[in-house]
Amino acid sequence: MKTIESFIRDIHDFPKPGIVFKDLTPLLNNPEATNLCLQQLLTPLAHQRIDKVVGMEARGFFFGTLLAQKLNAGFIPVRKPGKLPYNTISETYALEYGSDTLEIHADAIQPGDRVLIHDDVLATGGTAEAVCKLVEKLGGAIVQCNFIMELEFLNGKDRLNKYSIASIIKY
Amino acid sequence: MKTIESFIRDIHDFPKPGIVFKDLTPLLNNPEATNLCLQQLLTPLAHQRIDKVVGMEARGFFFGTLLAQKLNAGFIPVRKPGKLPYNTISETYALEYGSDTLEIHADAIQPGDRVLIHDDVLATGGTAEAVCKLVEKLGGAIVQCNFIMELEFLNGKDRLNKYSIASIIKY
Repeated sequence: MKTIESFIRDIHDFPKPGIVFKDLTPLLNNPEATNLCLQQLLTPLAHQRIDKVVGMEARGFFFGTLLAQKLNAGFIPVRKPGKLPYNTISETYALEYGSDTLEIHADAIQPGDRVLIHDDVLATGGTAEAVCKLVEKLGGAIVQCNFIMELEFLNGKDRLNKYSIASIIKY
Repeated sequence: MKTIESFIRDIHDFPKPGIVFKDLTPLLNNPEATNLCLQQLLTPLAHQRIDKVVGMEARGFFFGTLLAQKLNAGFIPVRKPGKLPYNTISETYALEYGSDTLEIHADAIQPGDRVLIHDDVLATGGTAEAVCKLVEKLGGAIVQCNFIMELEFLNGKDRLNKYSIASIIKY
């Protein structure tokens, strides 16, 4: 079996010049690699009760749904504005240039729910921090934020130092 | 156990006035209902070999990844233009007003791969037809297109009459 890293493809200058994008589609395309990655995401959660898994649009949906099923938890999508059809709450956060907003259904999490937050990549931590705020506004308790990849040079962990963070591959 | 239908929520006037949107987030939020839905999607595929599951951005990703795992198949996302980072092929299709384009990675499917196409809803069939064309351009053989819901009054099946179609809930 090849390593999980060997299924992550570097795409230079995507989405803009100078950026090396980590493409996980070869990993998804291989069921053995997908299962190995899923097992590694689950390992640090052993013996933890998780009620809800929250995944970020859109790449957080891939492993988010798989994690929810393995944990026997509900899956909650966090989406860009206007995509979720029911009543939502939203959180706006700063980007390098400008800002972005994320929404969650207001009834998705019950007070006291134990929540796992999942995304494919931890970069600056801005997105994950916004999602943590959304979950906490609804009364959820964040058990862990997990990621397939972590870009350590962007120090995303610093913004999430209140939380337990796990990632499989560190760059 | 309640029925799968009872976890689908009607949202009136979304995304525009006059439309009743079928919201499947309550289904995703309930692990038993999600598993029941997954089992019902798998039933018509018993004894079929599936190499790849293709899911449409973004709601097709939820059950697409779960189906791929259960079928021990690769998962392939079809996305809106500019979202997939590697070499893509694209297909443009007509909407009621205007047109839309979908992309797939050019190396996602090998000639002869047996492919399941999944989306949450079959409406006019325009999206599914475009995805079938993308898969066939890459040499894939379409085993089935499956959907959680089918809006029968929109006659989407007529556009897909070359293919095997399965859906759990018909409106």
